[in-house]
Amino acid sequence: MSHNSFGHLFRVTTWGESHGPALGCVVDGVPPGIQLTEADIQPWLDKRRPGQSKFTTQRKEPDQVRILSGTFSDDRLPTPVTTGTPISLMIENKDQRSKDYSDIRDTYRPGHADFSYDAKYGVRDYRGGGRQSARETAARVAAGAIARKILSHILGPDTAIRGALVQLGPHRIDPAQWDWDEVGRNPFWCPTADAVNEWESYLNSVRKAGSSCGAVIEVVATGIPAGLGAPIYGKLDADIAQAFMTINAVKGVEIGNGFDAAALSGEENADEIRLVDGAPRFGSNNAGGILGGISSGQDIVARFAVKPTSSILAPVKTITKDGQETDVVTKGRHDPCVGIRAVPVGEAMMACVLADHLLRHRGQIGTV
Amino acid sequence: MSHNSFGHLFRVTTWGESHGPALGCVVDGVPPGIQLTEADIQPWLDKRRPGQSKFTTQRKEPDQVRILSGTFSDDRLPTPVTTGTPISLMIENKDQRSKDYSDIRDTYRPGHADFSYDAKYGVRDYRGGGRQSARETAARVAAGAIARKILSHILGPDTAIRGALVQLGPHRIDPAQWDWDEVGRNPFWCPTADAVNEWESYLNSVRKAGSSCGAVIEVVATGIPAGLGAPIYGKLDADIAQAFMTINAVKGVEIGNGFDAAALSGEENADEIRLVDGAPRFGSNNAGGILGGISSGQDIVARFAVKPTSSILAPVKTITKDGQETDVVTKGRHDPCVGIRAVPVGEAMMACVLADHLLRHRGQIGTV
Amino acid sequence: MSHNSFGHLFRVTTWGESHGPALGCVVDGVPPGIQLTEADIQPWLDKRRPGQSKFTTQRKEPDQVRILSGTFSDDRLPTPVTTGTPISLMIENKDQRSKDYSDIRDTYRPGHADFSYDAKYGVRDYRGGGRQSARETAARVAAGAIARKILSHILGPDTAIRGALVQLGPHRIDPAQWDWDEVGRNPFWCPTADAVNEWESYLNSVRKAGSSCGAVIEVVATGIPAGLGAPIYGKLDADIAQAFMTINAVKGVEIGNGFDAAALSGEENADEIRLVDGAPRFGSNNAGGILGGISSGQDIVARFAVKPTSSILAPVKTITKDGQETDVVTKGRHDPCVGIRAVPVGEAMMACVLADHLLRHRGQIGTV
Amino acid sequence: MSHNSFGHLFRVTTWGESHGPALGCVVDGVPPGIQLTEADIQPWLDKRRPGQSKFTTQRKEPDQVRILSGTFSDDRLPTPVTTGTPISLMIENKDQRSKDYSDIRDTYRPGHADFSYDAKYGVRDYRGGGRQSARETAARVAAGAIARKILSHILGPDTAIRGALVQLGPHRIDPAQWDWDEVGRNPFWCPTADAVNEWESYLNSVRKAGSSCGAVIEVVATGIPAGLGAPIYGKLDADIAQAFMTINAVKGVEIGNGFDAAALSGEENADEIRLVDGAPRFGSNNAGGILGGISSGQDIVARFAVKPTSSILAPVKTITKDGQETDVVTKGRHDPCVGIRAVPVGEAMMACVLADHLLRHRGQIGTV
Repeated sequence: MSHNSFGHLFRVTTWGESHGPALGCVVDGVPPGIQLTEADIQPWLDKRRPGQSKFTTQRKEPDQVRILSGTFSDDRLPTPVTTGTPISLMIENKDQRSKDYSDIRDTYRPGHADFSYDAKYGVRDYRGGGRQSARETAARVAAGAIARKILSHILGPDTAIRGALVQLGPHRIDPAQWDWDEVGRNPFWCPTADAVNEWESYLNSVRKAGSSCGAVIEVVATGIPAGLGAPIYGKLDADIAQAFMTINAVKGVEIGNGFDAAALSGEENADEIRLVDGAPRFGSNNAGGILGGISSGQDIVARFAVKPTSSILAPVKTITKDGQETDVVTKGRHDPCVGIRAVPVGEAMMACVLADHLLRHRGQIGTV
Repeated sequence: MSHNSFGHLFRVTTWGESHGPALGCVVDGVPPGIQLTEADIQPWLDKRRPGQSKFTTQRKEPDQVRILSGTFSDDRLPTPVTTGTPISLMIENKDQRSKDYSDIRDTYRPGHADFSYDAKYGVRDYRGGGRQSARETAARVAAGAIARKILSHILGPDTAIRGALVQLGPHRIDPAQWDWDEVGRNPFWCPTADAVNEWESYLNSVRKAGSSCGAVIEVVATGIPAGLGAPIYGKLDADIAQAFMTINAVKGVEIGNGFDAAALSGEENADEIRLVDGAPRFGSNNAGGILGGISSGQDIVARFAVKPTSSILAPVKTITKDGQETDVVTKGRHDPCVGIRAVPVGEAMMACVLADHLLRHRGQIGTV
Repeated sequence: MSHNSFGHLFRVTTWGESHGPALGCVVDGVPPGIQLTEADIQPWLDKRRPGQSKFTTQRKEPDQVRILSGTFSDDRLPTPVTTGTPISLMIENKDQRSKDYSDIRDTYRPGHADFSYDAKYGVRDYRGGGRQSARETAARVAAGAIARKILSHILGPDTAIRGALVQLGPHRIDPAQWDWDEVGRNPFWCPTADAVNEWESYLNSVRKAGSSCGAVIEVVATGIPAGLGAPIYGKLDADIAQAFMTINAVKGVEIGNGFDAAALSGEENADEIRLVDGAPRFGSNNAGGILGGISSGQDIVARFAVKPTSSILAPVKTITKDGQETDVVTKGRHDPCVGIRAVPVGEAMMACVLADHLLRHRGQIGTV
Repeated sequence: MSHNSFGHLFRVTTWGESHGPALGCVVDGVPPGIQLTEADIQPWLDKRRPGQSKFTTQRKEPDQVRILSGTFSDDRLPTPVTTGTPISLMIENKDQRSKDYSDIRDTYRPGHADFSYDAKYGVRDYRGGGRQSARETAARVAAGAIARKILSHILGPDTAIRGALVQLGPHRIDPAQWDWDEVGRNPFWCPTADAVNEWESYLNSVRKAGSSCGAVIEVVATGIPAGLGAPIYGKLDADIAQAFMTINAVKGVEIGNGFDAAALSGEENADEIRLVDGAPRFGSNNAGGILGGISSGQDIVARFAVKPTSSILAPVKTITKDGQETDVVTKGRHDPCVGIRAVPVGEAMMACVLADHLLRHRGQIGTV
């Protein structure tokens, strides 16, 4: 119910504003006995960290995570393990520039949540977007790192959750060229080497123009057994859709074929099943690994669309808090495409949903 | 947490299988003092009822709803009103044909949840799909009718939640021709008169071929004030996405521009704001009425994609429960496009999400 | 969150008023593959059923339960088993006398919830108490029967949840004389044969005077393994306390020594531990089987106090809905001591809490 | 669902172990626009802080609270106000003595949760009790301070939640001598001046003997309107019972007359109602201000019993983790009666439950 929590048996509660002293989360429901230190979390935060290329915001944040509770070690147990109690994670904000925010204090930036926050709360922390800032997603990435540990602890080391950018602005990749190894070699998390040069040139022009573009991210979970999820309102895909849609700037979510499925016939969309070495093997994965809300044992494939960054240099017509018409120009350190840094966030959300469903499944069914 | 409940302050719990004696739901959290009889619910069920045209399943179900609790009337209060206690709704199943189900008892129909249900539960009611049947959505439509009553009770009579089919198979409507009055005049809930003949001809050919097609449904909520929703995991759009994705066969969800937003620039996607008679007025609605997870006062616009019906006459390769390869042909009474009957279901889910957020907003903020 | 649901992984939602057509509940989260028919539930309802002795209300209700969903059988599976989907239970009300309720329609009966319901809702079903009637507890007893099945399915047949009346009005039993076999032999669920005559004579006089008395009920759960519960807000004893306090007329709850513990020293209250055949064995059970909110493997022992029935023949000063002072005399069919019929209800609530915690434990920890 | 959260619309999630770097909580659902600084919280923490008299543990903790998120101020708004976003509170642990914990590392202290934690989790932070330590209650007291702000913000300044110790070991106060002003004048929160000398002498002897005793605490909420709570599982008293039972060492909870009600007749227990100046006025408050789970507008009166501190100097028989019989003697800095410091904790829990129900009521009903 809490507006700032998600998950049930694996449950994450985040807190913090862009320009407050810190942000963080409490991760509850983690099984005991899993080795966990900051070193398990930091690499995922580093992946999301701003300022790593010219294509993301130049804000400098070390994003060093601290574990404040929930793990234990002593001389007999030198590597800390989870104890089953809540894990509190904190990341201090370091680069909150003491700039003058008077330009956005009273002016509603179109596309941002300034207007709707004010309509709801009447007061808001406008510095850097406050609670609506994507800095909040750092806490999700940290929680996602713990979710990954749970998945591999219970399901084994072959579980993987990986994301890639499959569309940058109007430019889509060719799925036939997909190469997971390529994803880590370019600043876009692009899975096809062919697209990188084009994307670089395109995004450079967008950036120099002070404009922005959107993107589509695909997240794939491998090694997830059949049976996770539940029929009606506990559908695995419904929880993935919700989780993705909670990420800033996301406007669409798809599972498997997604919207393309609408144009197919039943024959085209069917994932036929054969036996290979006695085990079920699907001939295709139009379903994205989920049937009736329950995982089928295939890869779980989901995508989300991110709108273009609303912070642009071109003046946009808007109004002020006290009812004056004006124009707004958003200067400052912004990502020309927030979709890039959304890749590790999408992975984290997928990991959290799967960890939660894994524990819920184990609760009702008893085995995995 | 419950797998068969959704919502928080306004909370719906559904139950029932396709071929059990009945199905229904318990609707909790309804404010007291709202006039409510079966006559407020039945028209919405009638809209969803099967067998009304040759384009939907020929199963004959009267779908008569009974209110078993939660309302009260006496001689001083002749029209029943809600009492604030849980409203139990029941719909008896009438047309469960006593056919032989041995063909699907042991054979996993591709695209259906037979395989994944069995992987999870080990046992299932296979008759007519059991709990995975779209008959469950009758209970949602009934609950949605109550949600509509809450919305109009609190927000006034100008609140409306309307849906339409905007794509049938590969055929999309032209949004510029949209006419809400047309929606009720054709068997497809199609909002453009121009498309109806084409759609009729197309779906007739699909139906006669024993094939199926998908669809895209758009749901629009009008008269929703700014401020509903919450920043992070209580985002209004996230809850809509989850709610739509819980509907059978849905594979994608969009808010506002949705996936098209990915290809736009920040300038193109901005919804500029002006003042008209002193009130904020947006120049466009690319955001679909939701900014940062909170309603902006514009129309809330959301879409979902439905895959083609998996039940088709063409044989599909599959396996049996006991590990034999086989083919399956699905005869019986099926919708060639389940998207048509998904329109009132999508409306109902939107109504339920909005009613829940309205009560949650009132709880935290105190006013609407 | 729902006001009419309790539990998390094992979750019960009840509905229905005293004089409506029926009452019932939806039981969600039940593991699949457990044999279940009405015959598993009916005996517990019979135990709670009114009109079985002169010491309980003379309302005649057969309280026949029907399972409307969530189980399945066919020719290969002749005994129905749970399928993991929600189980809907319904009990029709048969003996709603068409009496004239005008005496309580506008008059607030002291001790009843008439006044507070009206203050909250402004409207209420006053017939027989409506939703505040203890008839709602029939649904709990039915749900509790399913919870018992889960416990024995997972923990084995030696699990038992048994209740007894340990105090009737001012008359307490001698715990040293406790005999579980005696409990079923008298109309009071009294565990000591010595007390029965005294209680019978006492309650007869109370009944004939049109008066009422309170009671204390003890519920003991045997065969519960160590480890159920959770440290802080998921404490097993906190959930038991909440569950008992939701039963009509309950004003106090104790675990183990309860209030008597306040007067003891640490030495007196300590439950020492020894090893017997290599297994931990506690020398006493002052803790009531729960340490730090987590079960210790001892019997779980909890008590609740029931206030005297508020419906009495003596006139009581009160006011009417429209602000007039008056006296009220409550005639009709009432239990002189509602504590007697609260015994099976307390057992059911204990069973529900334990089933929920068992599934939650299995979810986080993985084994029982 | 989360084991470390409580409340629904007003929701608190706590974290931290006794000897970790810090402890804290996230408070979600707070209405916006309420003035809040550390100075609003610190006095309540000071009331609970250890080491203030010889009757509480000599551990020295400044318990300085920091607000890390959820409030905002600028030059136009000099006093910080809540923004409706989650409030993160942190209290650093300062006095974690680097003592040798080998004595309790492997030995289960009877009455503590060592045994049951190990049975559940297999691993635990044994230093100072880890998560089972009553230090966690500092976070509750901080959250309770915010709950009080909500209550007075919505209900006005006449709302008060006050607690007192009504029994110390075997010594009960005389309720007829109750004086709220006396409560703050003695180290026991005792409401009757007459009892203080006796209690002081008694607790001194207990303390010198290295023994301990229990206590009973009463918490009274004044100025709460009629209508808070809900009929069945959302009963206000049930949530109070649960909240109190989550406090360390609590073994019993009562509302109004509590267990004494069992021995009364219906006539004795009735709270008659008259009109005074046109408003309902109850002649007594046996119900403790709650009827049918809903507040009646009277004072809400609840009590809880605390067992004697389990940490005592006398040797107690127990076993070790690896299955050896041994004796344990608990030295160190302990409260001879934890009931004293439980008074502000009980007040805080009452405040949190009431704030949550107030927001829930406002959500369903619309007004207070």
